[in-house]
Amino acid sequence: MTTRRPPFDTDTLYLGAPEVGRLVARVGLADCLAGVAQRIEADFQRWGDFDKTARVASHSSDGVIELMPVADAQWYAFKYVNGHPKNTHIGASTVMAFGVLADVATGAPRLLAELTLPTAIRTAAMSAVAARALARPGSRVMALIGNGAQSEFQAIAFRDLVGIRTLRLFDTDRRATDKLVRNLQGQGLELIVCASGAEAARGADIVTTVTADKTRATIVTPEMLEPGMHLNAVGGDCPGKTELHPEVMSRSAVFVEYEPQTRVEGDLQQMPADFAVTELWQVLAGRATGRTGADQVTVFDSVGFALEDMSTLRFLMDTARELGIGDTLQLVPRLSDPKDLFATIGRAEPHATPPSRFQVVAPTRAQRA
Amino acid sequence: MTTRRPPFDTDTLYLGAPEVGRLVARVGLADCLAGVAQRIEADFQRWGDFDKTARVASHSSDGVIELMPVADAQWYAFKYVNGHPKNTHIGASTVMAFGVLADVATGAPRLLAELTLPTAIRTAAMSAVAARALARPGSRVMALIGNGAQSEFQAIAFRDLVGIRTLRLFDTDRRATDKLVRNLQGQGLELIVCASGAEAARGADIVTTVTADKTRATIVTPEMLEPGMHLNAVGGDCPGKTELHPEVMSRSAVFVEYEPQTRVEGDLQQMPADFAVTELWQVLAGRATGRTGADQVTVFDSVGFALEDMSTLRFLMDTARELGIGDTLQLVPRLSDPKDLFATIGRAEPHATPPSRFQVVAPTRAQRA
Repeated sequence: MTTRRPPFDTDTLYLGAPEVGRLVARVGLADCLAGVAQRIEADFQRWGDFDKTARVASHSSDGVIELMPVADAQWYAFKYVNGHPKNTHIGASTVMAFGVLADVATGAPRLLAELTLPTAIRTAAMSAVAARALARPGSRVMALIGNGAQSEFQAIAFRDLVGIRTLRLFDTDRRATDKLVRNLQGQGLELIVCASGAEAARGADIVTTVTADKTRATIVTPEMLEPGMHLNAVGGDCPGKTELHPEVMSRSAVFVEYEPQTRVEGDLQQMPADFAVTELWQVLAGRATGRTGADQVTVFDSVGFALEDMSTLRFLMDTARELGIGDTLQLVPRLSDPKDLFATIGRAEPHATPPSRFQVVAPTRAQRA
Repeated sequence: MTTRRPPFDTDTLYLGAPEVGRLVARVGLADCLAGVAQRIEADFQRWGDFDKTARVASHSSDGVIELMPVADAQWYAFKYVNGHPKNTHIGASTVMAFGVLADVATGAPRLLAELTLPTAIRTAAMSAVAARALARPGSRVMALIGNGAQSEFQAIAFRDLVGIRTLRLFDTDRRATDKLVRNLQGQGLELIVCASGAEAARGADIVTTVTADKTRATIVTPEMLEPGMHLNAVGGDCPGKTELHPEVMSRSAVFVEYEPQTRVEGDLQQMPADFAVTELWQVLAGRATGRTGADQVTVFDSVGFALEDMSTLRFLMDTARELGIGDTLQLVPRLSDPKDLFATIGRAEPHATPPSRFQVVAPTRAQRA
């Protein structure tokens, strides 16, 4: 039953943490943010092409592990991602992620990539895409509340893609703010360190919240709202983890990525089931209005949707191929006869026990049922 | 903000297709089947410990891609697996799979392994575990209908773990049967090639169906049933893909892995929502009766459940460590400061553009929203 054709190519392009770091460094963070933003925007505009699912989460006492699948006619993508706020206490990241692109036509995995750094990039790119569509034109001042691993990416994305020039910074951990200030030196941004979230929000055109605690926090209270503000609420992204006071939500026009998921995970989880929201893709595709006036407060209740990761995985694959970055993995077998998986055992190891000498389990054991 | 402790270890053990093939060859298929069966049985007996979810499937015209997560207090596991029956036409496998084990406490991925070959092993091991609990004691003759990639594994598992000595073979593709006969030479099994499924089933104690077509097939019809038969129905495992005539189901005692998933995917999908089934773990844990008499027909409506893959991944990890097989991947970054993901960009490439020279996207583009 030998087939005549060459074995089906099952190679998977592999981009581990060092390779992804190299890719981002070669392209430059700003261009990565712009490239990912462009792909997210294009993909959101063809929203109907995708087979969408709310992510599947497994919660434990210390965190959550999620799988985020999405597919169109050509590509299937999924991301594995965790969220463990206490990880920083043992020197580990709050968020770690990797993802896969596979051929819909055959199921063959084509790319396996580290997505921790790319998740930070795509989250910031998504925020900037939303703010371009929702914030007041001419927004220049942004409060950045939560100065952890995601904050630099938000800063650069909003500088380049939205036009932010001044950042008002606050974190409950002052060392996180110091690190952010250090990392943003020489980036053409005015940095103002504030003593509280309320102080940071004062006079800001945009308020970005990227806090990590898995609690019902109220990082933004109604008193902090100013007419025309845009709130980019990134940190409230899982059940029991919120950042906005419910009244902030009820006083704003709220925009979401994928409504079924945000109802469960976003700041929206605090609101009644019939609280009206608009899916952002409708604004990007010109099917719905974003901001309706200069005084309106808008909220992007961001939780992170699988499509953003698919956009990012495709950006990584195209860029890696262009730059010649990455290794090849044999993550699944390459078979000369696809109906003969059994043959792979004999072939795997020249010194292997041949099939005719498989050890037979003792009858007493075989019969024990 | 430099931390004093060493960076958190984020290494992932990697077992690609060559490594898994080598591992199975070194251990021997029979011992792999026995080892995986033992772990499945032990895990099914502590069923209540697991956070269970029906798998998440993405269907396309040619196949399906699924993610299968499960967790206990220590481990989170998931498998990626496709099912594309037409793949064999282009020389590719119907099923390709890989999976991950991660720490529940931190979310760090600890094992990435090819699971195509292990899926065949665990499916056969699961079938044998079920048959030991459900088939008549002293079962010696098995019909094996569907002689593709999974069939050798079923044959060896039932030989060693159930005591089968005679196989009655049938496949619509005669070359598949020829391959199976070739692969099973010298394995101590009497092999009888039959002209139809009905002929194969005649006089069999156990009828195993492992067919691949994604259709509503009736591989086993009511006329084929004989008193006391056990049906091991493996191939009907996704919506629209069945192997048993509904009347075969209604005349049998039906056992399933995880009822919510089997209602949608198994041969059970053909039956009314209130059709009674028993979850197999209850039989294994002594909480429910299996077969109630020598003349009863029993059905194991197998679809494959995530827990079987977790049992298998743990077997692979323990065995790989014992044998020193596998590589290490840096699938997620190792950070000296977990709140400073941004720092990884600069470190990744000595010749990288430093952060101060990030290209700024042209204002016209930045302002276009």
